[in-house]
Amino acid sequence: MRGTVLHAPGDVRVEARDDPRLEQPTDAIIRVAATCVCGSDLWPYRGIEAVNGPAPMGHEYVGVIEEVGADVTTVTPGQFVVGSFFASDNTCDICQAGYQSRCVHAEPMGTIGTQAQLARIPLADGTLVATPTMPEPELIPSLLAASDVLGTGWFAAVAAAAGPGKTVAVVGDGAVGLLGVLAARQLGAERIIAMSRHEPRQKLAREFGATDVVTERGDEGVARIKDLTSGLGAHSVIEAVGTQESMMQAIGSTRPGGHVGYVGVAHDVSLPGEKLFFSSVHLHGGPAPVRRFLPELIQLIWDRKINPGKVFDLTLPLEQAAEAYHAMDQRRAIKTLLTP
Amino acid sequence: MRGTVLHAPGDVRVEARDDPRLEQPTDAIIRVAATCVCGSDLWPYRGIEAVNGPAPMGHEYVGVIEEVGADVTTVTPGQFVVGSFFASDNTCDICQAGYQSRCVHAEPMGTIGTQAQLARIPLADGTLVATPTMPEPELIPSLLAASDVLGTGWFAAVAAAAGPGKTVAVVGDGAVGLLGVLAARQLGAERIIAMSRHEPRQKLAREFGATDVVTERGDEGVARIKDLTSGLGAHSVIEAVGTQESMMQAIGSTRPGGHVGYVGVAHDVSLPGEKLFFSSVHLHGGPAPVRRFLPELIQLIWDRKINPGKVFDLTLPLEQAAEAYHAMDQRRAIKTLLTP
Repeated sequence: MRGTVLHAPGDVRVEARDDPRLEQPTDAIIRVAATCVCGSDLWPYRGIEAVNGPAPMGHEYVGVIEEVGADVTTVTPGQFVVGSFFASDNTCDICQAGYQSRCVHAEPMGTIGTQAQLARIPLADGTLVATPTMPEPELIPSLLAASDVLGTGWFAAVAAAAGPGKTVAVVGDGAVGLLGVLAARQLGAERIIAMSRHEPRQKLAREFGATDVVTERGDEGVARIKDLTSGLGAHSVIEAVGTQESMMQAIGSTRPGGHVGYVGVAHDVSLPGEKLFFSSVHLHGGPAPVRRFLPELIQLIWDRKINPGKVFDLTLPLEQAAEAYHAMDQRRAIKTLLTP
Repeated sequence: MRGTVLHAPGDVRVEARDDPRLEQPTDAIIRVAATCVCGSDLWPYRGIEAVNGPAPMGHEYVGVIEEVGADVTTVTPGQFVVGSFFASDNTCDICQAGYQSRCVHAEPMGTIGTQAQLARIPLADGTLVATPTMPEPELIPSLLAASDVLGTGWFAAVAAAAGPGKTVAVVGDGAVGLLGVLAARQLGAERIIAMSRHEPRQKLAREFGATDVVTERGDEGVARIKDLTSGLGAHSVIEAVGTQESMMQAIGSTRPGGHVGYVGVAHDVSLPGEKLFFSSVHLHGGPAPVRRFLPELIQLIWDRKINPGKVFDLTLPLEQAAEAYHAMDQRRAIKTLLTP
């Protein structure tokens, strides 16, 4: 099969890779219908995270089951399925508490590499959720978004306790931040402030439900959020970047007793204890347990109540994965969908 | 009147201070029935926090109202009252959300200094809670504990989401940690693991409801908690120290999706973002909004359902405040009550 491989920072190639095979009786093999490039794929692409030899890339996927192992009982060949970036058994105590991304048997899909024609999905029963029937093609981008960016933005909004009567601020205007706006709207937030200085992203944020846009960043961004909230700060803040500045901007923008939901993968972040202590905020985040939300998100998409697929503003054949990375790295594209 | 003054690290004196007077129509003056030395008073006493000139000390107090300002309507002279270490209006949006320690009009009692015969209480209507009648003398230590250490331990247990079915670990065996054990028990926790290597404190922890004691600290302490929790970590962890080691011990001891309630005042703490991110814990804490819990705590004490006053293992006349600090600094006393 064909699949992407990162050889070195900036060097993504699509090349022949071995077809995946069932390795465990709990595995499934899927034919990938759509995959995409994640903001987190840009960290090694930019050389900020180490690249360990040629590495298969990608952890977002939707597709049709080709084959299942002997122990798989809940999904069958021919079904269209959505999974997320961690395979999980969905039965252990941690999964049952809703933290499937930290399942005691969790396996990261990123090392398997789903930017490919086929993919092996471990723990298929726990990991995959089938759609009611074969989806209309126009639903595929949204179902793919559920696989990571929608599920992650949704988790951030839940972690930030977004809901009726709440003012929610969103730090980060990538796909996750934008879908955090959509999630906050769905969860009933009263006011949603998108922090963005990029016009097409501001526009999409408003389409997804943002009521205000703030262009300032850092301490100025914090001051602006306070101006908009009677000096108190937002009730709920979604952090979807992962830098020191964005974390401090998120914490500083939250009122005492408010909630920060952070999902930007932390890079060189160090939180000053005293500042955090006296902020009196709730802080929760980490790798999103997307699996928790998949059934609900798939239903919302199926019923055409949400259209998260709009974050894909560029679609390319898998063979052009290098250009997909390049466009996102340069912020020419919010998110690129790849068709194998 | 007589009151304590910290002149320099290690140099606490009891000396003549001006009698407090009503400064605002919302003030009250109380005659202090009992006050005490706080673990946080030891930070400047030890020179870890700067001492700014001769500073009045103390922020814990119970007493009888002597006089109230013209605007005070809910408490009257002659009533016995309990307050906490921040004066608060109890009406602003932040107070109404339960974060009175971050009231928009909050005033720290520590700068007023309640280790004295009299004290001015700002925002008396919002700050003070009267007991049903004049308390029996044996209830006074417990009511004084409600003023800070009980309220703080209680907040930590609530922030850590202690409750039925939960395993709660407690980092720190000072008065706050011990009362965190008591709070977790009252909140219905199934299993409570006190982390302490100090025998009298272990004993008090067990009296307050601890089911297990762990003597290891740091990474070894984390490993021991995991051993006791099927490798997963505790559901809820109370952090009541405020050092780098104790914070990392608390975060490391918590299972993914679990809750850390931290109330140790952070000193030179810096939380590594990546470790926090992948811990997937909820983190909440800060200066405890003790006022939120006072009515409930006073009732539990009044009904003799809890006896938090047991943390006072030394009682001295106010005049011997220097010895009170000395005994706590040397860990000869858990907490010292002072009678003015």
